[in-house]
Amino acid sequence: MTNPGLEGVVVADTRISDVDGERGALVIAGADVEQLARTTPYEGAVARVLAAGGADGAAITPAAIGAARGAAWELVPRLGDALDHPDAMDALRTALGHLRATGDDARDAIAAIGAAPVVVAAWSRRRARAEAIAPDPGLGHAADYLRMTTGAAPAPGAVRALDAYLVTVIDHAMSASTLTARVIASTASDLISAVVGAVGALKGPLHGGAPGPVLDMLDAVGADPEAWLIRELAAGRRIMGMGHRVYRVRDPRAAVLEEAVLPLASPRLELARAVERAAAKILRERKPDRPLAANVEFYTAVLLDAVGLPREQFSATFAVGRIAGWSAHVIEQRRTGRLIRPASNYIGARP
Amino acid sequence: MTNPGLEGVVVADTRISDVDGERGALVIAGADVEQLARTTPYEGAVARVLAAGGADGAAITPAAIGAARGAAWELVPRLGDALDHPDAMDALRTALGHLRATGDDARDAIAAIGAAPVVVAAWSRRRARAEAIAPDPGLGHAADYLRMTTGAAPAPGAVRALDAYLVTVIDHAMSASTLTARVIASTASDLISAVVGAVGALKGPLHGGAPGPVLDMLDAVGADPEAWLIRELAAGRRIMGMGHRVYRVRDPRAAVLEEAVLPLASPRLELARAVERAAAKILRERKPDRPLAANVEFYTAVLLDAVGLPREQFSATFAVGRIAGWSAHVIEQRRTGRLIRPASNYIGARP
Repeated sequence: MTNPGLEGVVVADTRISDVDGERGALVIAGADVEQLARTTPYEGAVARVLAAGGADGAAITPAAIGAARGAAWELVPRLGDALDHPDAMDALRTALGHLRATGDDARDAIAAIGAAPVVVAAWSRRRARAEAIAPDPGLGHAADYLRMTTGAAPAPGAVRALDAYLVTVIDHAMSASTLTARVIASTASDLISAVVGAVGALKGPLHGGAPGPVLDMLDAVGADPEAWLIRELAAGRRIMGMGHRVYRVRDPRAAVLEEAVLPLASPRLELARAVERAAAKILRERKPDRPLAANVEFYTAVLLDAVGLPREQFSATFAVGRIAGWSAHVIEQRRTGRLIRPASNYIGARP
Repeated sequence: MTNPGLEGVVVADTRISDVDGERGALVIAGADVEQLARTTPYEGAVARVLAAGGADGAAITPAAIGAARGAAWELVPRLGDALDHPDAMDALRTALGHLRATGDDARDAIAAIGAAPVVVAAWSRRRARAEAIAPDPGLGHAADYLRMTTGAAPAPGAVRALDAYLVTVIDHAMSASTLTARVIASTASDLISAVVGAVGALKGPLHGGAPGPVLDMLDAVGADPEAWLIRELAAGRRIMGMGHRVYRVRDPRAAVLEEAVLPLASPRLELARAVERAAAKILRERKPDRPLAANVEFYTAVLLDAVGLPREQFSATFAVGRIAGWSAHVIEQRRTGRLIRPASNYIGARP
């Protein structure tokens, strides 16, 4: 009985996050995602998820994360052509590979968390043929990431929205990238190797690769979303940002991001809502047995666009947030897990 | 019912390889490993496993693989400090990340297969404070890897033994690194990302990280293997190179490697056999319900040492061989698999 998607197979007990796909609820280290995103800056959420994984949360401070951004800046000139990758995720994956694992997971986690926004912003600047901008360890993580990308002091509203985004995506139970990180950690390999592998998984269009294409879709929709969607479906194309393997109802993160983007008065927000309504209506008519609602990537596209990040950087920004969750899972896997080694069923020729 | 090791869970139907742990048999793309290692050069085995995965085997020729080594040489000056990693696996993982995925899996596979020995040898030379040596696309893969590492024309016996080694480890069903590659591919990410993740998994001491420590053990054993082993077990230390998650009998690859190393008249071979006999006897007495016999890494250590590779390079040499298997699994996963997304069981606090 081959189970090619591992649906329903429980691979770990975890204290890091819980997804209730029937109710549309996401708990992150003991808190509802809605509450966490409204009340906790990203650095606080990082400490919380790493502590849930088993690290000493007290050592994970905004100052330590800021210092890790500073340390990562020293890495930038030593990356060879890593930042020449046309894809930001390839650049991030390769650049993180240059970090030296120390074997102290909490320390390696902070190094990776600090490095991610620095190298993604440096990639973005290079792509725009602009000088890379050094981190400011005294700023918040979200503010510094925006500043290093755009070159300007970011508006407080944009910082708040991006911070809420990074918290919202910080962990999501056993996603494919998290499984990747845990499998790598289960061999007793190091945290950097696990995070590098996870970035490669998140890159895939079936996982974290969709928010850029969602924005492309919003650009293409035009005045009549329903007619556009019907044409797309008739042509056999997938509607980006709708549906999720786990959720039977609306992804709770969609609501958090919709709320976070409101103060920014994005011209795309109304369009996105209209597209979501039209898509939900059409998909309900066509696939009544499989409810399809907006997923996290749908409003990710609207939010990241509204805070001023280019769409080529959306998936890598997802990684900037999720890297803390992966790290927490590595720490937890090492403490409680064992070598993850499933079976396969040979259907090839026999000697 | 959490299954933290995924024991017995079948995650894929595959035509690439089959492990029979009860009988101690390994079939690789329709051939017994013993026969394949005796009769087929590595390049032929590469074509065979990639074809089993679904690629066009006719395009996978020794000339194409040699050309990929040549192309990888152009990469070496663009790696930044990747080859300064003290660990060869970290260097390999980071250097492979610099390859540009084209999205054509077979093409990306050949690029990665060609690049691996070039960057591992360049790492080895740098560590020895010697100039890196350019590949010779006209040589066989095993011969060129040895030549680039040692700087001398390798002895034909050493080339034959290393070639048999690379074939022997080319694939091994759903190992943790192969699962890593398939999970990453299952998100529709690219082959380079999958291979980079797999290297990170193979690095772990519970997977491919053991052959170097096996050689350290052989160095430490002294004249009385049995007494040494009893002391080690009394001190609570693990005996390296013994036992395997899947095999209940002797790993068939141990025999293939033992046979391949015979013509090299390694002074360590007799010692290794004595240690294996003593370890098997002691472990049988202490754990009669769990047969522990030599695994692939035990004779890997003897063979790679005998062909003249430094022990710091053993795990990376495992990767040089296995990269073809990972690539075949990526191709197969993409054709027949679906998003690999298991579940987790939340045991943390509730809001």
